[in-house]
Amino acid sequence: MNESSAARRKPFRRLLLTGAAGNLGRQLRGALADWADIVHATDIVPPGAAAAHEETSVVDLADREAVMHMVEGVDAIVHLGGISIDAPFDDLLEANFRGTYNLYEAARKHGVKRIVFASSNHAIGFHPVTEVLDADSPHRPDSLYGVSKCFGESLSRYYYDRFGIETVCVRIGSSFEEPKNPRMLVTYLSYRDFIELVRCSLFTNRVGHVVVYGASDNPVKWWDNTKAGFLGFRPRDSSVQFAERFPVTAPTAERDDPAQRFQGGAFVLGEPLARDR
Amino acid sequence: MNESSAARRKPFRRLLLTGAAGNLGRQLRGALADWADIVHATDIVPPGAAAAHEETSVVDLADREAVMHMVEGVDAIVHLGGISIDAPFDDLLEANFRGTYNLYEAARKHGVKRIVFASSNHAIGFHPVTEVLDADSPHRPDSLYGVSKCFGESLSRYYYDRFGIETVCVRIGSSFEEPKNPRMLVTYLSYRDFIELVRCSLFTNRVGHVVVYGASDNPVKWWDNTKAGFLGFRPRDSSVQFAERFPVTAPTAERDDPAQRFQGGAFVLGEPLARDR
Amino acid sequence: MNESSAARRKPFRRLLLTGAAGNLGRQLRGALADWADIVHATDIVPPGAAAAHEETSVVDLADREAVMHMVEGVDAIVHLGGISIDAPFDDLLEANFRGTYNLYEAARKHGVKRIVFASSNHAIGFHPVTEVLDADSPHRPDSLYGVSKCFGESLSRYYYDRFGIETVCVRIGSSFEEPKNPRMLVTYLSYRDFIELVRCSLFTNRVGHVVVYGASDNPVKWWDNTKAGFLGFRPRDSSVQFAERFPVTAPTAERDDPAQRFQGGAFVLGEPLARDR
Amino acid sequence: MNESSAARRKPFRRLLLTGAAGNLGRQLRGALADWADIVHATDIVPPGAAAAHEETSVVDLADREAVMHMVEGVDAIVHLGGISIDAPFDDLLEANFRGTYNLYEAARKHGVKRIVFASSNHAIGFHPVTEVLDADSPHRPDSLYGVSKCFGESLSRYYYDRFGIETVCVRIGSSFEEPKNPRMLVTYLSYRDFIELVRCSLFTNRVGHVVVYGASDNPVKWWDNTKAGFLGFRPRDSSVQFAERFPVTAPTAERDDPAQRFQGGAFVLGEPLARDR
Amino acid sequence: MNESSAARRKPFRRLLLTGAAGNLGRQLRGALADWADIVHATDIVPPGAAAAHEETSVVDLADREAVMHMVEGVDAIVHLGGISIDAPFDDLLEANFRGTYNLYEAARKHGVKRIVFASSNHAIGFHPVTEVLDADSPHRPDSLYGVSKCFGESLSRYYYDRFGIETVCVRIGSSFEEPKNPRMLVTYLSYRDFIELVRCSLFTNRVGHVVVYGASDNPVKWWDNTKAGFLGFRPRDSSVQFAERFPVTAPTAERDDPAQRFQGGAFVLGEPLARDR
Amino acid sequence: MNESSAARRKPFRRLLLTGAAGNLGRQLRGALADWADIVHATDIVPPGAAAAHEETSVVDLADREAVMHMVEGVDAIVHLGGISIDAPFDDLLEANFRGTYNLYEAARKHGVKRIVFASSNHAIGFHPVTEVLDADSPHRPDSLYGVSKCFGESLSRYYYDRFGIETVCVRIGSSFEEPKNPRMLVTYLSYRDFIELVRCSLFTNRVGHVVVYGASDNPVKWWDNTKAGFLGFRPRDSSVQFAERFPVTAPTAERDDPAQRFQGGAFVLGEPLARDR
Repeated sequence: MNESSAARRKPFRRLLLTGAAGNLGRQLRGALADWADIVHATDIVPPGAAAAHEETSVVDLADREAVMHMVEGVDAIVHLGGISIDAPFDDLLEANFRGTYNLYEAARKHGVKRIVFASSNHAIGFHPVTEVLDADSPHRPDSLYGVSKCFGESLSRYYYDRFGIETVCVRIGSSFEEPKNPRMLVTYLSYRDFIELVRCSLFTNRVGHVVVYGASDNPVKWWDNTKAGFLGFRPRDSSVQFAERFPVTAPTAERDDPAQRFQGGAFVLGEPLARDR
Repeated sequence: MNESSAARRKPFRRLLLTGAAGNLGRQLRGALADWADIVHATDIVPPGAAAAHEETSVVDLADREAVMHMVEGVDAIVHLGGISIDAPFDDLLEANFRGTYNLYEAARKHGVKRIVFASSNHAIGFHPVTEVLDADSPHRPDSLYGVSKCFGESLSRYYYDRFGIETVCVRIGSSFEEPKNPRMLVTYLSYRDFIELVRCSLFTNRVGHVVVYGASDNPVKWWDNTKAGFLGFRPRDSSVQFAERFPVTAPTAERDDPAQRFQGGAFVLGEPLARDR
Repeated sequence: MNESSAARRKPFRRLLLTGAAGNLGRQLRGALADWADIVHATDIVPPGAAAAHEETSVVDLADREAVMHMVEGVDAIVHLGGISIDAPFDDLLEANFRGTYNLYEAARKHGVKRIVFASSNHAIGFHPVTEVLDADSPHRPDSLYGVSKCFGESLSRYYYDRFGIETVCVRIGSSFEEPKNPRMLVTYLSYRDFIELVRCSLFTNRVGHVVVYGASDNPVKWWDNTKAGFLGFRPRDSSVQFAERFPVTAPTAERDDPAQRFQGGAFVLGEPLARDR
Repeated sequence: MNESSAARRKPFRRLLLTGAAGNLGRQLRGALADWADIVHATDIVPPGAAAAHEETSVVDLADREAVMHMVEGVDAIVHLGGISIDAPFDDLLEANFRGTYNLYEAARKHGVKRIVFASSNHAIGFHPVTEVLDADSPHRPDSLYGVSKCFGESLSRYYYDRFGIETVCVRIGSSFEEPKNPRMLVTYLSYRDFIELVRCSLFTNRVGHVVVYGASDNPVKWWDNTKAGFLGFRPRDSSVQFAERFPVTAPTAERDDPAQRFQGGAFVLGEPLARDR
Repeated sequence: MNESSAARRKPFRRLLLTGAAGNLGRQLRGALADWADIVHATDIVPPGAAAAHEETSVVDLADREAVMHMVEGVDAIVHLGGISIDAPFDDLLEANFRGTYNLYEAARKHGVKRIVFASSNHAIGFHPVTEVLDADSPHRPDSLYGVSKCFGESLSRYYYDRFGIETVCVRIGSSFEEPKNPRMLVTYLSYRDFIELVRCSLFTNRVGHVVVYGASDNPVKWWDNTKAGFLGFRPRDSSVQFAERFPVTAPTAERDDPAQRFQGGAFVLGEPLARDR
Repeated sequence: MNESSAARRKPFRRLLLTGAAGNLGRQLRGALADWADIVHATDIVPPGAAAAHEETSVVDLADREAVMHMVEGVDAIVHLGGISIDAPFDDLLEANFRGTYNLYEAARKHGVKRIVFASSNHAIGFHPVTEVLDADSPHRPDSLYGVSKCFGESLSRYYYDRFGIETVCVRIGSSFEEPKNPRMLVTYLSYRDFIELVRCSLFTNRVGHVVVYGASDNPVKWWDNTKAGFLGFRPRDSSVQFAERFPVTAPTAERDDPAQRFQGGAFVLGEPLARDR
């Protein structure tokens, strides 16, 4: 069997990965190799050398023409691009508002029917840590960044209701090599579980427009994915192995600090940023 | 200890199994041997040779007199009988409407206090595949067959509220040797789990009138049995072992096919059947 | 302008009214004159002389051929026909099960897109009188008659999901000249309000499949129609004017009588009827 | 007592009205005279001559400096400004996204604690007309315009949770002199009721962050304001007086037109607009 | 007709009114004359002269023997007695805890089947003023007094589930001649409406165990009585006539005062009281 | 490292354990050694000899002065004290009402910010065994003892809303060495799981005021802890190992016994106790 016939056996012909140079983009990129003949890895900074099955590009998502061109011929999109930390509103307006709009418009024009959208726990970060949320819990953004993720969820809902473009909004917790602080023992999403969640989001036959929380099977649970059970996502990892790094302490007066009271952690203490700092 | 005294130690004296010649009836029949001194296995077609602890009969459930006679002296009933595929309404009216009524009337007259009713996922098959249901989700029958199962659930509710006859309505998914298509990876109920679910339904001390979904612990979940937790049913099998038989594909335009959009699968495409085909 | 051109200005061309000889059928018949050029008034007994704009027929709803013929050319149906009291199951099976199925099948074949279905409070009569229900309250039939109304609601749901035939299920309370007992002070639906509710059900542009309770604006409320607010039904009458006919008494031991405990009143005391009485 | 001391007796010292030159701005402006010593009426086009108690300005809300200046010394804001029809995304991005952000940032910097935000029924326009919504119904924008209103609701939630700035999000129906089409019989909000709703929103001692629907007491109800009952809003007008202008018709095939199926009406048919058309 | 035969026509033979010397007791006492042959008016202080149809007594509810004696022969009880303001816990323990227990035990022993219990909005006073509650809203007492009312609701629930004694828990707002402050514009319950609510609570044939809020039809609504609609209570009065006494002001910094933030008003600022002050 | 410096590394400095001489107190006492430098073990009867890290006392919780003294300097309290079976109301009034109040008042005065309160399944024991409860299920006490636990939950809610004292209300099932009857197969909480649940309750950084059910991972589930997922409690034991001790039987007429119908078991059959038995 030659290479091209092997390639034809992959489920997708062409997948687009935005934010390919970011932390999660780098993790996901390898996995995509098994799922698509061609992976187009793009970012606003160079996403590194292209593998045999890859194309790469450097594109600013706020550049409508470039995005339109990039999406042509794509089967599905994993949209990790844009700004993933709190930032001045003007910057978010370009990268996360205009950028996401450009991507959905391009998807509409080119007939893309499935997008996995990297939303964030910061879309609901102003819910208290003593509440367990599910997919119907209302938006409570904890920052302008969180507001930009609420926008992505609203916009994608519109593209679903109006044009039938399906989106899985993954409210990602904390996806790093390992938890960096006690809060992340709750929000931790291992790379392996993240990849599995994207896999479920891409391959489930129908997803409509759905919200799913991205967390591993950690002991403490703020989020309940029962309503997204049709995605078939079952995390295999847990933060429990990292628990002992964070010495157990009695609750202190700091528990009344907003960063301790709300799910968004320190994000809830941020203030809208001036552009020039 | 002689055989008869051993037999007296079984929890039920006499169990009635309708639909004994059907696929699930044949699976269940063996298990019933451990639960009752006498198992009366009945069907509209001959249910095969009787074992030592068994009685068999050939009875049309639409025959009121015969049903009344059959139920006499019974402790509990597992009602798998009737038509279990879509069928002309006139046929359903006899087998599933009149037949189920006859059975409940006989139960009432003879003081039977527990019935396990084989309802079906087709009672809720017009819910979309992107929704997770529980016991309170409204009826959405996907066929006249499904409507007949809604009827069975309504009728048994009446017999519970009015006469105290308890019923477990088991909305059976797809109980076969193994899944036959990708949809069944979601709806699969192994024979072993089916038998366990009937066991829980018969032996739980009080069940009232309850709906429980019959599915194994499959990766994708359309149904949540939390509200029936008092039955103690825990599936031990999963369709995951069969997953690789159905090659993973990217979502295609077929995902908009109603048979892909709704939980009932191809049933939602059926039309009311003329009797003569 | 001559009479026939004036007639063409009525909103419906041809309306079918089943159960035209019954109590409510007689009330409604006059109102239909303003809504349709031709009103076909039918019943299993002769529905009385036809007015100029009317056709009448005597049809058993269980007669599929006759029903099929009757529905041809109809724009919408007000389905009051069938048995409206508790009755032997075999009778209900013909009139309310087979009859309603025949009507929906005929509607499907002839392209009728709107049916107003006379459901009943007896579909939910086993809810206690200390509970306020809405459109999502589960079925609790209080009689086999009530079960037949649950069936009509399930069947019409199927015809909506599968074939787009819209149905308003009107759970009629007690629609008589005036309340006949204290319970009817709660369930009273004046004729005028009944007619208005049918009007809303016929003329609202889209109704989907909806449940609405049929009660006037009585002081005591068991049913909340908020979820059917899109029908625009506002009762104008109240049972309050009849209240003094029923002398106020202190609660007595009779309050524990099931007929006092459940919304269905005396229906909950009924037993399945033998056919031969 | 001279005029200026009388003026001091008005409840607010300085109110800001954005969108003062628009249809609703013009209606509201007179009422504000009774509520504040000074009304600052602003718009992107000249808002007409200033009355004795008024200041006016022409400000583009996308101009951060100008907005910051304009908000100084203000007690509360009625924010009707921005684009109120569907428009190219780039235009919405300036007027409704950047503009609303600028306003909230200015409010934060200048200590304004109450904003009445003109949201829109188009934030939930993709809900079907057969559903009754309340304040917790999820966003279903029917257009990019609707998405911009979802953004305003999310952003103001953030400013409430983070900075304690209270917002009443008024999802305005159709506030015109009179209903212009049958849909507006449902969504009609008389000018008088609109003014009353703004009054309740400004004067209720505490409002937190709340969604309220802006409709008069029309016969057909898509929206239920029970959860905003603490605002004390009771509409006094109704579209019923205009009903006869729209001849009643039987439902037709057009009822399946998306503009008939969804609450947003014709908005749901729009497509994202190019800037240059 | 002589007097005794006329008396026999009243619905109750003997009603017990506790707290008869209090503000509401005095209001209610006259109305009871029409409802019962004999009204036993009791309080811990002398309840004033007895009318012809009355008996009076001075009883400490904490005195079990005395309570037991007092309840003998009673048909129903309106329990307004006990402490109705915040008070030292030890005092509440006697009057509201022990006293209410004594009353229910006496009711059980003497076969009394209906009690109207004066609960209070202070059982839910720690809900914010921006929330609308119904009968299922959880307890949020705003004071030890409020805790004593939660106790009364829990205790009466037990006596209902265990012994079938029905209780209407009336969460009384502010029932005075007229509202004394702006908060009472929301919580005002006119004497006439209070009496009507007690009437509904006594005469409704079955009430089970139910919570109902006691407020007139005031413009601002914190409480929704839909779920208690079976009581038939419709307030006829409104605080709107008193609105102008409280000059409208713009929200001020005081809105962040807990007494402004929570429904309980100034009660939420109280501290557990020492007995000796 | 010497012993005292090691001791300083324990998370709590001083923990108070009430009810230390009781069944669960004895189980827990050992575990507390690892969590606090000093454990104060108290009971109304002598709690046994003090270990090196322990203080002990004999205190009647109804003795306000003694309780006040005992709580001084405490970081957190595990409150197992009071009466834990049904008892005469007067006894409950002292031990469970006055005693719990004394404890919370002492906590308030001494700045204790976390209490683990041993509530009980008997606070909700009148829910039927065919219902699955969660933290929002309403109180249904099955006994005066259960009412006293409802009181503890209401009181602690007040201390949380008013003074910020956090409480975990643990509705303990049946925590014994092993299940003693079939009901306990459902309600069983192993000692190990009980200790783990207290650990989660003490160490979770913020808990607010929360209800959690105390049951091991038993096959039959009446209680769903999803809403308390933020505590991180995962039971490791199950009653399944004890199942075979209770021979399986068919449901009998006894299933209609209230002790079989309600979750509280035999408690629901109790009657208020006279003090002198």
